[in-house]
Amino acid sequence: MTDRNAPRRGPRLAALALAAGTAFAAHADEGMWLPAQLPEIAAQLREAGFEGDPAELADLTRPPLNAVVRVGGGTGAFVSGDGLLLTNHHVAFGVIQYNSSAERDLIANGYTATRADELPANPDYRVRVTTGFDRVTDEVLEGARGKTGRDYHDAVESARKALVAECEQVPGNRCSVVDVHYGMDFYLVTQLELRDIRLAYAPPDAIGGYGGEIDNFMWPRHSGDFTLLRAYVGPDGRPADHSPENVPYTPPAHLQVSTAAVAEGDFAMLAGYPGRTFRHRMASEFKQQVEWQLPSRVALYDGLLDTIAARTDGQPELKVRYASTVASLENGLKRARGELEGLERSNAVEVRAAEEAAMLAWLRQQGDAAPILADIEAAQAVLAEATATRERDQLVATLGRTEVFDAALRLQRLALERGKPDAERESGYQLRDEPLIRAGLERVQRRYAEPVEKALLANLVRQYQALPADQHLPEFDRVFGTDPAAVEQRIDALYAGSTLDEAPVRLGWMEADPAALAGSGDTLLQAAATLLPALLRIEDEAKAREGELLRLRPSYMRALVDYTHSQGRAFYPDANSTLRVSYGRVSTLQPRDGVVYEPLTTVAGIVEKHTGEAPFDAPERLLQAIAAGDFGNTADAVLGTQTVNMLTNLDTTGGNSGSPVLDANGRIIGLNFDSNWESVSASWMYDPRYKRAIHVDMRYMRWLMDKVYPAHHLLAEMGLPVD
Amino acid sequence: MTDRNAPRRGPRLAALALAAGTAFAAHADEGMWLPAQLPEIAAQLREAGFEGDPAELADLTRPPLNAVVRVGGGTGAFVSGDGLLLTNHHVAFGVIQYNSSAERDLIANGYTATRADELPANPDYRVRVTTGFDRVTDEVLEGARGKTGRDYHDAVESARKALVAECEQVPGNRCSVVDVHYGMDFYLVTQLELRDIRLAYAPPDAIGGYGGEIDNFMWPRHSGDFTLLRAYVGPDGRPADHSPENVPYTPPAHLQVSTAAVAEGDFAMLAGYPGRTFRHRMASEFKQQVEWQLPSRVALYDGLLDTIAARTDGQPELKVRYASTVASLENGLKRARGELEGLERSNAVEVRAAEEAAMLAWLRQQGDAAPILADIEAAQAVLAEATATRERDQLVATLGRTEVFDAALRLQRLALERGKPDAERESGYQLRDEPLIRAGLERVQRRYAEPVEKALLANLVRQYQALPADQHLPEFDRVFGTDPAAVEQRIDALYAGSTLDEAPVRLGWMEADPAALAGSGDTLLQAAATLLPALLRIEDEAKAREGELLRLRPSYMRALVDYTHSQGRAFYPDANSTLRVSYGRVSTLQPRDGVVYEPLTTVAGIVEKHTGEAPFDAPERLLQAIAAGDFGNTADAVLGTQTVNMLTNLDTTGGNSGSPVLDANGRIIGLNFDSNWESVSASWMYDPRYKRAIHVDMRYMRWLMDKVYPAHHLLAEMGLPVD
Repeated sequence: MTDRNAPRRGPRLAALALAAGTAFAAHADEGMWLPAQLPEIAAQLREAGFEGDPAELADLTRPPLNAVVRVGGGTGAFVSGDGLLLTNHHVAFGVIQYNSSAERDLIANGYTATRADELPANPDYRVRVTTGFDRVTDEVLEGARGKTGRDYHDAVESARKALVAECEQVPGNRCSVVDVHYGMDFYLVTQLELRDIRLAYAPPDAIGGYGGEIDNFMWPRHSGDFTLLRAYVGPDGRPADHSPENVPYTPPAHLQVSTAAVAEGDFAMLAGYPGRTFRHRMASEFKQQVEWQLPSRVALYDGLLDTIAARTDGQPELKVRYASTVASLENGLKRARGELEGLERSNAVEVRAAEEAAMLAWLRQQGDAAPILADIEAAQAVLAEATATRERDQLVATLGRTEVFDAALRLQRLALERGKPDAERESGYQLRDEPLIRAGLERVQRRYAEPVEKALLANLVRQYQALPADQHLPEFDRVFGTDPAAVEQRIDALYAGSTLDEAPVRLGWMEADPAALAGSGDTLLQAAATLLPALLRIEDEAKAREGELLRLRPSYMRALVDYTHSQGRAFYPDANSTLRVSYGRVSTLQPRDGVVYEPLTTVAGIVEKHTGEAPFDAPERLLQAIAAGDFGNTADAVLGTQTVNMLTNLDTTGGNSGSPVLDANGRIIGLNFDSNWESVSASWMYDPRYKRAIHVDMRYMRWLMDKVYPAHHLLAEMGLPVD
Repeated sequence: MTDRNAPRRGPRLAALALAAGTAFAAHADEGMWLPAQLPEIAAQLREAGFEGDPAELADLTRPPLNAVVRVGGGTGAFVSGDGLLLTNHHVAFGVIQYNSSAERDLIANGYTATRADELPANPDYRVRVTTGFDRVTDEVLEGARGKTGRDYHDAVESARKALVAECEQVPGNRCSVVDVHYGMDFYLVTQLELRDIRLAYAPPDAIGGYGGEIDNFMWPRHSGDFTLLRAYVGPDGRPADHSPENVPYTPPAHLQVSTAAVAEGDFAMLAGYPGRTFRHRMASEFKQQVEWQLPSRVALYDGLLDTIAARTDGQPELKVRYASTVASLENGLKRARGELEGLERSNAVEVRAAEEAAMLAWLRQQGDAAPILADIEAAQAVLAEATATRERDQLVATLGRTEVFDAALRLQRLALERGKPDAERESGYQLRDEPLIRAGLERVQRRYAEPVEKALLANLVRQYQALPADQHLPEFDRVFGTDPAAVEQRIDALYAGSTLDEAPVRLGWMEADPAALAGSGDTLLQAAATLLPALLRIEDEAKAREGELLRLRPSYMRALVDYTHSQGRAFYPDANSTLRVSYGRVSTLQPRDGVVYEPLTTVAGIVEKHTGEAPFDAPERLLQAIAAGDFGNTADAVLGTQTVNMLTNLDTTGGNSGSPVLDANGRIIGLNFDSNWESVSASWMYDPRYKRAIHVDMRYMRWLMDKVYPAHHLLAEMGLPVD
């Protein structure tokens, strides 16, 4: 990591100690640390059992951390000098599916390739190797200083876009600007984007995804959720599209899979790309999340699911069309309930409020705290302002759950954006996004039924109508009226006068002249045209608030960082899809009174769960191998059998799928693939009693590849023994 | 225990070593031992940790075992010299309910009585103190010898009835003749029946039944399932009906509640009245249970539940009427599924078959085994014979799940039996049974709806019609016809021509002249009159088989006992509602791979489960006491908090509810109230991996009575300290 800026300091307070060389005390095993912070916490890392040199981990562009890469939507790690890449079966699932057909069902049967018959991934599948992580705070904020609100927001956005565009001039580069501490600092992330990825080894889905949705989030777990890919580059060593001439990529580093035993209490460390956490949000945001956001989401989704159920009851064909919408709503509902349950169990609102109060009390003791406190108060006011229309804004956002109605809105918006130069178009409506929009418009057909959509829309509109007058929008009232009794009639008329439910019509409008669209007699397009100004206004207000928060929140964050340091504790930034390191140990979990979960599961659990029906349909070959009991050098000597999955208290979130779990010497002992149900709320609060991460024990992978679905050549390539 | 017979021996094989003085080795912690057997297993009892003298436990009519009594349908123990009796809240629930009203809701609020305001139980509530257990094998079998089949059965029944009648000549005696080893031996059980039982202390139902049906069979558990009753007798010290003049009963012995800590691995012993087990049934019976009985029950109950659901859908009033039938069917279904799951998990069929094969191989080596083997073969043939009509017999028995139809059958049967001298009437239709029959006929009204009953009957009849011709009964074919398409029509006609759905009509027929009943024009009574001969024939065949088995099975049992002894192991009889003792230890449970259940739960679990809604609605007073954390001398020093429930591997079954759990010195450390879901199959097979019993930790009772719902006078009476 290099710092393109001189360290920037707050008026009187010390700034983020990213590379300050200060050492801080441990705070349980919480923390998604920036690699550059690891020297700061060297003492507790060593105390926890790490035997390497923390300084070697400080630069994410050098070994060993540069072996840890982004793969699809998750993480992976190179495990050989020939570009062999270890990630989750579920992270590589699209690749396996892409290569599967009725004749060659790689999902059901798995796949073991020799070098010659490795299969190319879907062309849009990407692996990204981080090659730069540079502080660009000054560049990003230069044009924003002195501005406020929407102007501040736009200045930041424009600077970010410019930096990305410049960075992506280098062929093969994929770049982004991420913020750290909500606008306090900005970093330019440079990644080498590999485009020729091939499938080298996959277990059958009944192993890789054993337990399916039922076991999702659950421990004890018994999944062999791993797959081996291989990255290829052109003969010149540069990223290239798939071609037979390509050669295996030589990664800058690769990790060694361990052959040692693992037991409760062992040190463990994980590197990966966690997506997003909210742990350093303000106390008022915690309160709103628990008291309004999650309960209202539960009520909203529950209502939509009831509506769909009522309208598809006894009609299997409609049920199929709405299966994916239902699955998504149910998943959202389950997560919201789990998050609420967890935050309540952890007393998150009270705990965060007490922390914040202590921080503010400390801050008031510091010299010249007044401007900081003023910023914090102003930020609080912005957040409070947003709550005035939160019910309405939630309903408006939920319009995106419709298909044809949402298509009308998107078509009108696209027409508007197409009138601007590409760089000025709203993100999501740029040239590069158009294929995605087209795919979305095509997909509508498979997920839509008029009576169901109309009922969903009526549900939302009726909730909107019931809101207090100050949340109403004239445009919405014009389209839907204000009489709840007439809603169905209004909606019927909108759909009766529209042909947007026909795919060619929708796709045709996508290419049409904006003027033609504006003048169209299609009733849904007309309604969308009426509503668009209101949606843009809401968006503009939201961006103005975003800009203000981006401007003001750094004062809060700086105070929080300094306060935490004043307590002798290090401070990690909320996750932002950049490479992070967490450490901890192989751990039991006491999910509730009287119950202890062991940290290692065994093949006995596969047999116990096996019913013969998906998702508990272990392959006969696996069952026979378990019955034979020939576990050789992968058996756990203490348990006297083959282990399968492993539980640690490592700090993870979405995006950490496929993260390598390392032992005290940096060897891979596990492959992260899920977290436990009790930690769904960990994106807001790390509760050491409940936060756990679920991994494939590497000994299970080795046993499968040695004895059940053998791939001895790949074991040899990874430097692993055959029994 | 006295032996009224000289020991009886089989032709060449040693008989049941009840008091033989032989010592045998331990066999895990399995066993529901007759007290007289305890000296036999003295060595392993001591090895397991028992510190008393096993010889003192040999006589169930002497201290300490005579402190353990039958209470209602369960067990209880005297805990003071003034007749104070400890049992489960659920065993005493009827007493609490009997004394509850809208104004004085003892179910919701619990009750703490001083001696003066102890409340009388419902008049039919009984406590029975065992005062005699005498071998009467010769008397019972004298008249049966040389007979077979139904004659053998009737001779045994008649001898049993005579012994009971003679025994009950003594006022206050309640007597029964039980068989041991399925007809090999018979014992006359004499019990002193106490009729004035009063409520001294009950916690609120939200403590005593915390978790309700949801937690039923579940561990971890958090129920304070205990209640204190007091037995009273007349001023003359003899059993008497309730009267203000009565005085507390002075029991022959009472047990001391422990004040010591309990921990995993501690020795534990339990005494109580387990109802029925099937562990020594033949291998073919295990096979039939797993391969036919349980799966067919699941299918049958599933179908009946579907029928009820379809006919009550959208009709809340009908749902209420069938709530109890549905609950009973669902409970039966749940148990059948659990038993099947457990027997399969334990490989019960194979294990029992292998044991039996080893026993038979051993038997063939013994001198003169031929007559024994012939008996065993004959018994097998009787069992095989019963399978020929098992589907039909199951359907016919299930007719008892109807209300009005079943009332018609019962009325016709009662009329028939009333024509005989009382002693010759079928058991269940004797004079003493008539109040129960009347109550049943009255209750029909609350649990019946014509369309639902007709659908249930049609379901059963249609299944009957689909059976092979050799299972058909001419009388049934006459009533219901053989055309599935006409079943509804036939049934409609039966109900249209009947007024049995009116309670006064049903009760009127109960008192009516048998001839009037026979000549009645009521179509359901006519149908019942037609069916009765078929039902009597089935009953007669069943009794003939029962008689044959009673005659032949002792040969099998004698061989099994002797074979077991030859292996150096003691052998306990299957449970038969007589007093038994089991021993074991406070134990964890590994219900499945990766999960360990701790043997002690704590008050933290009450808070975790609390939702505010039944069955998880812990009283505010309890929640506050938990929050206050004032556990004083009842706290567990290791866990640093208050324990609630306890898990042991004690061998129990239905009837053991309320059994005292004793430590190595005979002090009460727990009160048994349930077993775990994984051991539902233990009535057939004890699997040491899964068989556990669930108890109230006496420290929880002491804490509640000391600090939460205080009853210091009762603690003092039990010799227990107040903090």
